[in-house]
Amino acid sequence: MIKERLDYMPGGKRTIFQRRDVFSYSMDAVLLAKFVQLPSQNGKVIDLCAGNGAVPLMMTLRTKAKIDAVEIQNLLCELAERTMKENGLDEQVNVIGADLLELGPQIKWESYDAVTCNPPYFPVTSEKNKNENVHFSLARHEISCTLDDVIRISSKLVKQKGRVAIVHRPERVVDIFATMKKYRLEPKRLQYVHPKKGKEANMIFVEAVREGNPGVKTLPPWIVYKDEKNYTEEFRNHYEC
Amino acid sequence: MIKERLDYMPGGKRTIFQRRDVFSYSMDAVLLAKFVQLPSQNGKVIDLCAGNGAVPLMMTLRTKAKIDAVEIQNLLCELAERTMKENGLDEQVNVIGADLLELGPQIKWESYDAVTCNPPYFPVTSEKNKNENVHFSLARHEISCTLDDVIRISSKLVKQKGRVAIVHRPERVVDIFATMKKYRLEPKRLQYVHPKKGKEANMIFVEAVREGNPGVKTLPPWIVYKDEKNYTEEFRNHYEC
Repeated sequence: MIKERLDYMPGGKRTIFQRRDVFSYSMDAVLLAKFVQLPSQNGKVIDLCAGNGAVPLMMTLRTKAKIDAVEIQNLLCELAERTMKENGLDEQVNVIGADLLELGPQIKWESYDAVTCNPPYFPVTSEKNKNENVHFSLARHEISCTLDDVIRISSKLVKQKGRVAIVHRPERVVDIFATMKKYRLEPKRLQYVHPKKGKEANMIFVEAVREGNPGVKTLPPWIVYKDEKNYTEEFRNHYEC
Repeated sequence: MIKERLDYMPGGKRTIFQRRDVFSYSMDAVLLAKFVQLPSQNGKVIDLCAGNGAVPLMMTLRTKAKIDAVEIQNLLCELAERTMKENGLDEQVNVIGADLLELGPQIKWESYDAVTCNPPYFPVTSEKNKNENVHFSLARHEISCTLDDVIRISSKLVKQKGRVAIVHRPERVVDIFATMKKYRLEPKRLQYVHPKKGKEANMIFVEAVREGNPGVKTLPPWIVYKDEKNYTEEFRNHYEC
């Protein structure tokens, strides 16, 4: 029997349904929800590759705007829907079970103030994902959508001068910028995360503006751990608040 | 009368001739000389926009390779030449007084193991540089060469799989990557410098490999100051060693 859990999100203000056999939220999702610049209330936000809904869930702490959450896996949609109900957020967050490559009349193009996405990070290879179950593969590897897909569709969803924020591996940053430029998204804010002082970055957050002017700001980086187990004080204050 | 000074470089192992009426070396040059990966001895290195020679001067602490230094301003070339003599480095460092757009038989294309450049950072505008003297203007603004020029020529100078390292403003990173890709230089190593903890980055170092494979590492950033006047300990140990 599959054990389902109701977990607290960092900070303890939200709870989330999770199952061990499907992809659980990770630090990336929480940080993305804190990184993106959001409209305060009258706007519209959409989260792609939403998984079990961690990004929209955490964004509700920062905005009253309506949030659509698109996820291809039914099992994850179902968890996300129950999570929103459990938190009394089912009016604010609308879970859409759909392949983002086939988004149709349930969404309106060029209407969103902000688009967020925590996409699969790894190109498909014959080796890397063969031992994973399909739920993990879809979340981690570019099987159902590539970086180009995610950025192209984000650019179609967002308004003129609206924002698209993604989290990815820093190794891919050159590719991310080139793809954003290809779809008229201008990178404007960057933030790196380093697992420890003195270590290479292992996450990058990029926010782009549709038809924005060139010129990007690089925010102070986050350093996550001060030792094997404990967060640095700055990071804990950010992550758990 | 113009006062000329013989200054110590950080760490005190090298001295440099400087004049107040021309552009003096800055932290960027010293950090670039420490950032780039250099051949140990049999290789060839070239520094573009060399100014009074700070980058080649500091690279001699890390390599025995021959270094060419290209600078368009005669006054700066003359300072650089005397600096190399003063430090007993005139055999290792060859100062070339030339416009890099007109490099001719004095150099050999596609022959360098590493190219370094600390180029003018700012696009030419009608406002910004009108109160500067011409020596400062040429060093700071893209008058004699643009970012595209610098990267195009670097790519022509470097060997297959050789390295091109530049320092620039982080605001321009999207443009830097796109231009490098255009000229078959693949960014492989990045490093940001933040003036203080909690502040946005104000320098970026990018090292690219000619015909390299995609995938970039983001090194731990440097945080320069711990308070108004003093370097952080990590930075001082790096900068002044």
